[in-house]
Amino acid sequence: MARTAGSHSDITGPRVLKAALQLFARHGFAAVSMRQIAAQVGVQAGALYNYIPDKQTLLFDLMRTHMEELLSAWQDEAGADTAPARLERFTRFHIRYHLERPDEVFVSYMELRNLTPDNFSVIEALRRRYEDQLEAILRDGAQSGDFDVPDPKVATMAVIAMVTGVTTWYRTAGRLTVDEVQEIYWQMVRKGVSA
Amino acid sequence: MARTAGSHSDITGPRVLKAALQLFARHGFAAVSMRQIAAQVGVQAGALYNYIPDKQTLLFDLMRTHMEELLSAWQDEAGADTAPARLERFTRFHIRYHLERPDEVFVSYMELRNLTPDNFSVIEALRRRYEDQLEAILRDGAQSGDFDVPDPKVATMAVIAMVTGVTTWYRTAGRLTVDEVQEIYWQMVRKGVSA
Repeated sequence: MARTAGSHSDITGPRVLKAALQLFARHGFAAVSMRQIAAQVGVQAGALYNYIPDKQTLLFDLMRTHMEELLSAWQDEAGADTAPARLERFTRFHIRYHLERPDEVFVSYMELRNLTPDNFSVIEALRRRYEDQLEAILRDGAQSGDFDVPDPKVATMAVIAMVTGVTTWYRTAGRLTVDEVQEIYWQMVRKGVSA
Repeated sequence: MARTAGSHSDITGPRVLKAALQLFARHGFAAVSMRQIAAQVGVQAGALYNYIPDKQTLLFDLMRTHMEELLSAWQDEAGADTAPARLERFTRFHIRYHLERPDEVFVSYMELRNLTPDNFSVIEALRRRYEDQLEAILRDGAQSGDFDVPDPKVATMAVIAMVTGVTTWYRTAGRLTVDEVQEIYWQMVRKGVSA
């Protein structure tokens, strides 16, 4: 029955990715077998190879999809505006988007070293494209005199690391709402790059 | 010959830890065997068990030693002073100390999930003790009116993530010296918490 239900790749594909994501996040890429992923999806191990040639491709697809969706979601929010307004939007967007996807964030950072060199290059290029969005904002703000950032590249890495770090400690059941966390980080980012 | 040379635990112990650190950093904890570690040290696999009961203990010893040395090194630098002066010292210390230990930092962050629950608790307590050092500085500065940090706990996590992030992109052969990087980050931290 499971095979029949899962015989359409447009249904099973996303289910395979979801199962792989959960297992990679919980046990690590190296410790998970294609057999375990198949069991989680509810198909035979052999059937899994109809959808995906190997575990490396699964990992790559997960990371690529995560970065492409991140870039696309940011494009929807970016818009034209002053540099400080765009920086605020970027900061709040980044925190909310990543807090909503703890497994994707965790696997994307932890399993980078398990990508083949070619796959790594693709993911790095996507990540760089995302970082470039922030760097452009910081350069614009430096040029307009709103920001004082002597090295926009380094400032980009500093801000990204700071706001991504939320995912390592934030708990939904904790004392702070996402809105409160966004506000605290935005004030620190705003002051940190201020002229 | 290797066994004779390595038969003193005060010599072989550190060599085993060093070999394990390099192998864990390169291949990941899950992918490395005790046999590989023995080969790297130049002893028989059986001899390794004279020094260390299992791979879990090796990982735990590496992380505990890293955190204890970090805490001790910071105590040597801390000293009594104004909150802004202590914050500057902390920021510069943290960046330099971590840039000098890329393997320790990488393994400590990447392999946390591979610790047993008891070992994890010990490492978490040590990490919290280190974070408490920064939190105390931020609280003192807020009380003296030097800083505006509405939530010192969150500000602590934000600053730690930001300055630790240096280890993910800094390259010795790059365009910036460690001093220059320390200065850029210090200015961002200083402004980020400023009143």
